[in-house]
Amino acid sequence: MAELVKVALDAMGGDNAPAEIVKGAVDALNENDRLKVYAVGDETAIQTELSKYTYDASRLEIIHTTEVIETAEPPVMAIRKKKDSSIVKAMTMVKNKECDAFVSAGSSGAILVGGQVIVGRIKGVERPPLAPLIPTKTGVSLLVDCGANVDARPSFLVQFAKMGTIYMENVLGIQNPTVAIVNIGAEEEKGNALVKETFPLLKSCPDINFIGSIEAREIPAGGADIVVCDAFVGNVILKLYEGVGATLISKVKEGMMTSLRSKIGALLVKPALKQTLKSFDASEYGGAPLLGLNGLVVKTHGSSKAQEIKNTLIQCVTFKEQNINEKIKQVISKEEN
Amino acid sequence: MAELVKVALDAMGGDNAPAEIVKGAVDALNENDRLKVYAVGDETAIQTELSKYTYDASRLEIIHTTEVIETAEPPVMAIRKKKDSSIVKAMTMVKNKECDAFVSAGSSGAILVGGQVIVGRIKGVERPPLAPLIPTKTGVSLLVDCGANVDARPSFLVQFAKMGTIYMENVLGIQNPTVAIVNIGAEEEKGNALVKETFPLLKSCPDINFIGSIEAREIPAGGADIVVCDAFVGNVILKLYEGVGATLISKVKEGMMTSLRSKIGALLVKPALKQTLKSFDASEYGGAPLLGLNGLVVKTHGSSKAQEIKNTLIQCVTFKEQNINEKIKQVISKEEN
Repeated sequence: MAELVKVALDAMGGDNAPAEIVKGAVDALNENDRLKVYAVGDETAIQTELSKYTYDASRLEIIHTTEVIETAEPPVMAIRKKKDSSIVKAMTMVKNKECDAFVSAGSSGAILVGGQVIVGRIKGVERPPLAPLIPTKTGVSLLVDCGANVDARPSFLVQFAKMGTIYMENVLGIQNPTVAIVNIGAEEEKGNALVKETFPLLKSCPDINFIGSIEAREIPAGGADIVVCDAFVGNVILKLYEGVGATLISKVKEGMMTSLRSKIGALLVKPALKQTLKSFDASEYGGAPLLGLNGLVVKTHGSSKAQEIKNTLIQCVTFKEQNINEKIKQVISKEEN
Repeated sequence: MAELVKVALDAMGGDNAPAEIVKGAVDALNENDRLKVYAVGDETAIQTELSKYTYDASRLEIIHTTEVIETAEPPVMAIRKKKDSSIVKAMTMVKNKECDAFVSAGSSGAILVGGQVIVGRIKGVERPPLAPLIPTKTGVSLLVDCGANVDARPSFLVQFAKMGTIYMENVLGIQNPTVAIVNIGAEEEKGNALVKETFPLLKSCPDINFIGSIEAREIPAGGADIVVCDAFVGNVILKLYEGVGATLISKVKEGMMTSLRSKIGALLVKPALKQTLKSFDASEYGGAPLLGLNGLVVKTHGSSKAQEIKNTLIQCVTFKEQNINEKIKQVISKEEN
């Protein structure tokens, strides 16, 4: 039997920790027998949750920690000071090759900082981007970067495109995935300074299937498999997606409640509608990887429930078994020659 | 009787010109007796449309032109060469004070360029921003800038905030409107270089009601009356608004068609839903002004129909009668002392 994929799971991170996190781990173990989980956090709390379930105990280990990094804490300081936090301890296990991957629904800031400071970058990677999958009309797209690189350089964006391509090809199984850069028009001369400088670099990059600019309007329609931008723009896109969605859905609900006729209609459409809108819910697609690190780091939503944690843990198995990081190393080192 | 507000209307601009443009003019004239429209474009085509309606002919004049600037043309060249186009001729009328305002559903690029080159900036205004109203859960917000200033400076954004405040207070009638800067987190230390530099300037600006950062998620919820950003981010927000909306609505429709039960429900909810979603349709709110020019320039959607043209023409009357440009001059000159 091949070696198990070992994932250090932050059992203390997120709004629903540890209950939903532990449940997600159990569900993943029961679904995938190539996975081993190290649940990092308060032993008693984790044990209490675990006692509710049946699972293969040989593939789950508890790593006891006494500290928790809160979402509101300044991340650099938190990573430096809280050595016995679940995030620092779990990331250190990845750094030391005791684990292949780290998964957390905790503080984004701490995960971004810890990824760079503790786990460390693959040689040649300038900046690790956070790359969530976003739902589209036709499936999903990878939005790189939504992390910390708010004032990015053109060379960062080119690496984001390359790493995104490897991820989509190997983890999502999309052949020759399309790459586009977020822009305010389709013409090559449009854009801000960053986009204008990056465009020709992407155009001449042999490792990606670059299709040019994408206007934000085309993103939800599924205009490209990999959507590249700086992290400021990426964050705006990600959060506006949620915001417009939430407002529109509440408007639809409100509209359905305006008359007796529409109320009856609402009862009839509800189940079908729920199913459809679920496909437009980001949490269905697992967590966002921080690409280009010496080991896999995945950030899930702060509001993650068991389902998202389970999906993310299983993604880690694919990521490891597909040798994503080896492939990233190859593409990046090629660039250096 | 007070002097009429004179608007030069580009009868040839937009997907539905001249039919819907002319109809919008007639509807506006019939609704507001303080308005005079100069319909600029091909005389025969305009006359053919006008012959269908009844209106006060003393308040409509046709200004014949022979050229049209197409959306795909490079705008700087088009403005320079096509002297007998509806856009150049109508803007020249504003420049020469023959008209108070210019309205067009034509090429955005040509309108942005023409606004600066032909109409010209108010003394002291660094860059004129394009400021559309976007629908929110609670009403509308003004998004400045969605124009040409993609690599903006902090001082531009401060002026955008001041001009936006004057617009919202006087044209929309919102007392002491709130101003926020688009950011990727609520904390003051977050943001890219532009936002970090602009934040303290906005905070110390006495002419606006600055409430801090706004995350994109909060924009559709109506988190601020005036949402300030550079034009690259503004364009992304505007177009993603449309894109997520369109995709979600098509998902909702698709969801309703999945079973017989939901199809019956769909018939019952349809009228109420249509009404609600209309309130989330940007075209209901008239055009976007290009603020800070020597005269009012308003860009409406390329797909404008008569309703949007009518609303925009009536907005021009308010803009003029409220002396918006005098108020902008006062605030900007104060800054220079």
